[in-house]
Amino acid sequence: MTVLSSRPTLAYATRRARGDFESVSPATSFVDLPRVFTMHRGGVLRDGVVAYETFGSLSADRDNAVLVLPGLSASAHVASTDGDPRSGWWESMVGPGRPIDTDEWFVICVSALGGCRGSSGPASIDPKTGRPYGVTFPELALEDVAEAAAHVVRALEIDQLACVVGTSMGGMVALALLERWPSLARAHVNISAGLHSMPFAIAMRSVQREAIRDDPSWQGGDYTATRYPASGMRTARKLGVLTYRSSEEWSHRFARRRVDHRAEPFGREFEVESYVHANADRFSRSFDPNCYLYLSRAVDWFEAGQGVRGGPADALVMGVRTDLLFPPEQQQDVADYFRRRGAAVRHVVIDSDKGHDAFLVDVEAFGRPLSSFLNNRPWRIG
Amino acid sequence: MTVLSSRPTLAYATRRARGDFESVSPATSFVDLPRVFTMHRGGVLRDGVVAYETFGSLSADRDNAVLVLPGLSASAHVASTDGDPRSGWWESMVGPGRPIDTDEWFVICVSALGGCRGSSGPASIDPKTGRPYGVTFPELALEDVAEAAAHVVRALEIDQLACVVGTSMGGMVALALLERWPSLARAHVNISAGLHSMPFAIAMRSVQREAIRDDPSWQGGDYTATRYPASGMRTARKLGVLTYRSSEEWSHRFARRRVDHRAEPFGREFEVESYVHANADRFSRSFDPNCYLYLSRAVDWFEAGQGVRGGPADALVMGVRTDLLFPPEQQQDVADYFRRRGAAVRHVVIDSDKGHDAFLVDVEAFGRPLSSFLNNRPWRIG
Repeated sequence: MTVLSSRPTLAYATRRARGDFESVSPATSFVDLPRVFTMHRGGVLRDGVVAYETFGSLSADRDNAVLVLPGLSASAHVASTDGDPRSGWWESMVGPGRPIDTDEWFVICVSALGGCRGSSGPASIDPKTGRPYGVTFPELALEDVAEAAAHVVRALEIDQLACVVGTSMGGMVALALLERWPSLARAHVNISAGLHSMPFAIAMRSVQREAIRDDPSWQGGDYTATRYPASGMRTARKLGVLTYRSSEEWSHRFARRRVDHRAEPFGREFEVESYVHANADRFSRSFDPNCYLYLSRAVDWFEAGQGVRGGPADALVMGVRTDLLFPPEQQQDVADYFRRRGAAVRHVVIDSDKGHDAFLVDVEAFGRPLSSFLNNRPWRIG
Repeated sequence: MTVLSSRPTLAYATRRARGDFESVSPATSFVDLPRVFTMHRGGVLRDGVVAYETFGSLSADRDNAVLVLPGLSASAHVASTDGDPRSGWWESMVGPGRPIDTDEWFVICVSALGGCRGSSGPASIDPKTGRPYGVTFPELALEDVAEAAAHVVRALEIDQLACVVGTSMGGMVALALLERWPSLARAHVNISAGLHSMPFAIAMRSVQREAIRDDPSWQGGDYTATRYPASGMRTARKLGVLTYRSSEEWSHRFARRRVDHRAEPFGREFEVESYVHANADRFSRSFDPNCYLYLSRAVDWFEAGQGVRGGPADALVMGVRTDLLFPPEQQQDVADYFRRRGAAVRHVVIDSDKGHDAFLVDVEAFGRPLSSFLNNRPWRIG
């Protein structure tokens, strides 16, 4: 059994040394990975750690745990707690009386391996060199992110989860987890993800990665805080923002309104340009560029297996009509996939103009089916 | 009356000097703009020229002319001729026996002012300095592109066109033209355009322009053939290609097939990445980066007027179900706009997976309504 640990991770130390990534929550806990962790694609990670936060209380029977697997850039801080009162990335969905009700469920949110939110990743210090791994971090697959999350579940001495909830990339991580351990959870909620990435999404992420790699300050991954690929990260994030929402939403929200900013030729003139730029500018220094490259590529690589049988008895699959990255037909495929595995599946297409990110903002539309699924299903009693 | 001229343009000379843009067709003719040409946004262009090609024969009554206004990067070489047997950009649509039948119609295709396909633009030599204008070229609006096209029509001594056909950006140029001179054409075909650009398209073009401007080789617009923003142009074009087609098409065409290219970390691995890269690589040296910036911004700026009355008696408005840049509701707006101006309008939504660029490839789907419109309408006899 992997031991629980609360020492700060190397990733965290690096991040703090660079002084520029969003703080990992003080409520974060850490689990050591096995000292030699063999990765899905053959590489080896030594002395890795996985960061997570928990919310609510584990029942005496240890049967009320809900594992939340976040998207690419989100941390383990899914909601505020006494330990860290700052809003989490899914604040309105997780907490006492909320759709994922922490008065009832023991929620575990695990930070993705390969990212820069506390778990080991390319921004962590390589103990062999004393410097960040950068592109020497082993090739990362979503199967590794799933394996790391499983280590947290084991460390918490939970034999079976009540439910695994995965959003976006986290939805794919959930698929990887439930393929490796089909009976790890009695139920599953898969939100705005797919069995694999489609070529449009792959091509868009390819341009995002190229923008980072083409930034001369990327320096083959050996950037520093002072010589940092901020411009490439901004471009990558802008494309992210554009594909995370929908054309329909931009039209309602910004129309053709102008800002006065015309300081430079071809500068930002429309409100939409200004909004996207400000968002990207904030993001560019709050997420590690190499981690972005690794996770982005892992999303392209992932493919759910087709021969898996068994698994959760109940599944809720949700997606959004206007999602450009994982359009509704992909959630249909996820629903069919779990049906083939024997689950009772509810598939909900949310009619929102908020695109891929709708689950973060259309709380009511997502919260209602989620709440009903968590409250009424027979697997509720473990 | 502006005089006809067949001297090579300065733009052409520049392009040849740089040795890297696609050849302007030897069949190209040129019209001088007024020596002092006042631009829509207040600037002044001196000694400008407009490039065009013609196809078929002008009738004795000079009443069978069809003006074709191309998209952002297309030239005046819309189809092959004896003078230039190379395929044109709309080869299957224009020619003897084709939907725009040159046995019947005298087709004029005008290269956009501000571009680098023969008409004056930022890549042309500024006679005052002997160097390319670059960003000192006056601010360009699509109204200027329309005005330049009108000069060609006048130079050819045509009082009224049978029809104006505009595709993509050319559809907006057509709107500008028919607002300035409502009775210049008896009929109008507007393809895959809109009354204005939507914020999603603006934001996407903004990222494209930024990729060029952020390329250190752009050098404020003063690049040379040897120090040239090829990387920024490639990124811009990749986003172009991604928004010109549709997710649906990529899925049918590329699925998740791989290429073996793994020469560099995070290199191109999927066929879709490789395709988009090859397309962008070709484009990056075949279109002038500053011209791209000017035209791209002009498309963002354009807004059709709402108070115009009168105009063509008949209009055909076409668009595509999967167009990301100008989605079908925008063609509905164009159709309504011409109805308000008194036209009999036919609005056709093509059910194609080819997205914005479908008019270039789904020849039959576009050709049939176009052919029927051109052959059966009363305005056929001038």
